Amino acid sequence: MATFRTLRGMRDFLPRDADMIRYVEKVSRELAQLYGYEEAITPVMERYELLAAKSGEEIRERMYAFEDMGGRRVALRPEFTASIARLVATKMKNAPKPLRLFSVGSLYRYDEPQYGRFREFWQSDYELIGSSRPEADAEILTITNDLMKRLGFRRHFIKVGHIGILRGILNEEGIGEEQQNSVMQLLDKKRWEQALNVVSGLDASEGCITTLKMILKTSGSDASRVLKGAKQSVQNYESSVAAVENLLEILQLTRGAGIDFEVLVEAGFARGLEYYTGMIFESYIPEVDIALGGGGRYDKLIELFGGEPTPALGVAPGIDRLVLAMKKQKFPVKIRRQRRAMVIPVDEQLETKAFELSMMLRGAGLPTEVEVMGRTVSKALSDADRRDIAYVIIIGPEELKEGKVVLRSMEKREQRVVEMKNLLEEILGSTS
Amino acid sequence: MATFRTLRGMRDFLPRDADMIRYVEKVSRELAQLYGYEEAITPVMERYELLAAKSGEEIRERMYAFEDMGGRRVALRPEFTASIARLVATKMKNAPKPLRLFSVGSLYRYDEPQYGRFREFWQSDYELIGSSRPEADAEILTITNDLMKRLGFRRHFIKVGHIGILRGILNEEGIGEEQQNSVMQLLDKKRWEQALNVVSGLDASEGCITTLKMILKTSGSDASRVLKGAKQSVQNYESSVAAVENLLEILQLTRGAGIDFEVLVEAGFARGLEYYTGMIFESYIPEVDIALGGGGRYDKLIELFGGEPTPALGVAPGIDRLVLAMKKQKFPVKIRRQRRAMVIPVDEQLETKAFELSMMLRGAGLPTEVEVMGRTVSKALSDADRRDIAYVIIIGPEELKEGKVVLRSMEKREQRVVEMKNLLEEILGSTS
Repeated sequence: MATFRTLRGMRDFLPRDADMIRYVEKVSRELAQLYGYEEAITPVMERYELLAAKSGEEIRERMYAFEDMGGRRVALRPEFTASIARLVATKMKNAPKPLRLFSVGSLYRYDEPQYGRFREFWQSDYELIGSSRPEADAEILTITNDLMKRLGFRRHFIKVGHIGILRGILNEEGIGEEQQNSVMQLLDKKRWEQALNVVSGLDASEGCITTLKMILKTSGSDASRVLKGAKQSVQNYESSVAAVENLLEILQLTRGAGIDFEVLVEAGFARGLEYYTGMIFESYIPEVDIALGGGGRYDKLIELFGGEPTPALGVAPGIDRLVLAMKKQKFPVKIRRQRRAMVIPVDEQLETKAFELSMMLRGAGLPTEVEVMGRTVSKALSDADRRDIAYVIIIGPEELKEGKVVLRSMEKREQRVVEMKNLLEEILGSTS
Repeated sequence: MATFRTLRGMRDFLPRDADMIRYVEKVSRELAQLYGYEEAITPVMERYELLAAKSGEEIRERMYAFEDMGGRRVALRPEFTASIARLVATKMKNAPKPLRLFSVGSLYRYDEPQYGRFREFWQSDYELIGSSRPEADAEILTITNDLMKRLGFRRHFIKVGHIGILRGILNEEGIGEEQQNSVMQLLDKKRWEQALNVVSGLDASEGCITTLKMILKTSGSDASRVLKGAKQSVQNYESSVAAVENLLEILQLTRGAGIDFEVLVEAGFARGLEYYTGMIFESYIPEVDIALGGGGRYDKLIELFGGEPTPALGVAPGIDRLVLAMKKQKFPVKIRRQRRAMVIPVDEQLETKAFELSMMLRGAGLPTEVEVMGRTVSKALSDADRRDIAYVIIIGPEELKEGKVVLRSMEKREQRVVEMKNLLEEILGSTS
């Protein structure tokens, strides 16, 4: 049978990389606990209609969708928010608010594979449900920033906007939701010219086009200045003004609290997902031109799925993208590998003893491998050396008679005979 | 839009249950490190042919298989071993042996949902690659046992057999592999009568049927006695005798090393997966009639996938089944929830201060929620009470002027005014 390969856009993570993935997952989970987010696990597979509802045209077209053996239209989740909103609308509908939920897992999109973009990818996810207030938005931004800091990035920034700015303009111009969604998709893909052409073709006023052009150019890292400009541009659109003010209030709250992060405020920022209703954002490092995480407010999604009207927002950091970015910034990732021991019997008769001793060492918390290849001591030793084993315990018949074994430090390249009953202390002692 | 539900056989895990899943995952991962297993992550989706190759008729029929948008025949993995064998045959083909790999994740089978059986389920997975020796088998059994012990089960046992006993008989009778596979499927489903009828219909000798009948009845917890009986029964089948001896050697090795676990040796034990070539086993607790994990030796799979001939074996404990079993044995699961704090500002003007203070507490490692609902202090307090918050910090304008806040212990139901700069010490002090 021929050699099999992974499917296009799917990856194997070998141990070093898998450890990085699990490290980012672990830091994400610890952060969740620190902010009071409880973990929920939802299925990788859901009804197609649920996932398609407000995901946006692009994602809808790229979902892994198929019919299961029961004739149900199903799909692999392309993101977490739909599943969490479903959970909140159904099984958790009586859970008191605010509800803080954390998730982590793999997601699927049939995208064209490219740098940082794969067909199977991993995200963690923080959803804060039940509050429409700017404190909630500020909390989600704070978590986004805190994760980047805890992962050790030297420099990062958050691109932030508010979907209400653009929607406010388009609403007031009487442009329908479907058409607005098309415009947002184009803006998300930075196809500004095309987006403006669509709006022009929809009987929008001249003032509208002028305003949109101004808004699309309004960006910068000085939030107050940028948002002051944006407010002036949208002065004829009441709900856009409110959106600008909302965003300013959110950013002022974090600033006031001394939570300092670099921002790039873009008044004309749009994201592909259709469920956003308020602040939207993405996190970046300067060296990598893909979003390392993103999120926003979605106040209408939970009721769409049959729940009570419930304001909510969230953020989903991309775990494998963060690993990629960590490699790009080349900082030392603190994944401590514990020192390991290896137990080698000099002949077959001593295998049981080798097992017994290795169980004792593991029982004391020391990672311990036991020789299972039946190799000579010298072969097993050179293998131990190559694999960075710290201590080798050699069991020989002569020493064993006296209740002793040979303890070899692979780092110091020296060995001595020690009492078996003192073995653990001898090993721990040699660490210091 | 209507209320959405999960798909049949798919589950949501709400926080308490999700924590149990993550706890078993964590214990599994720590155990892997302790035995020298490094983690690999392979995709949930693979080529259909890879997963179908040796999975066995039943699993093949119940895979989630479909065509992706590129016209590839793909499937969601029903188990880990095929993916790991692929990895070893390809990207890791030059990795020195023994190779110890750990995986953890979700798996998919379109089974009829029933107690402990779902369409999405979780397993951890330990694969020991490169050794054909009984020490390797003993190590995998030891890990299986150790996981059950570390999870705190009061009583558990491992059902163990050797596929070589049955295959040895059928081989010698000239029965082809395909037909043997059908027989194994029937035996796996405990349809002994039917299995024997199939063999009878295949020109097997009368002695063969008699031997099979004896073997199928040969079981018990006294390994030496059971295997002595089995050896006698299969004395005319050379490779079956070797299989019995191999199993005896494996069990003696663990016993000799003082690794004591209850066994149920079944000489006629078969499992559905077709790739097994040696020892096979499953772990159980008396209270639950489903396997909590299973595994075995598969010495031919890696070469089937294009690799060098490489002996290997592994075990896959079922994470969600273990959680179910833990609930069944009702032992206290030690999932410590850390004490949490909540910061409440008495009015909107103090929100920034609340954010600032909560960041300080989180920075010191204390899980801290901040009020984001704009509630009155009394409403926020009763919410904190209901959710087992340990400490509430109330920020009021009067106290703040003097650099102070109110610290309330929800357990002791008492509060006092403390200096903000001493807040952390006051909280930590009140824990003891």
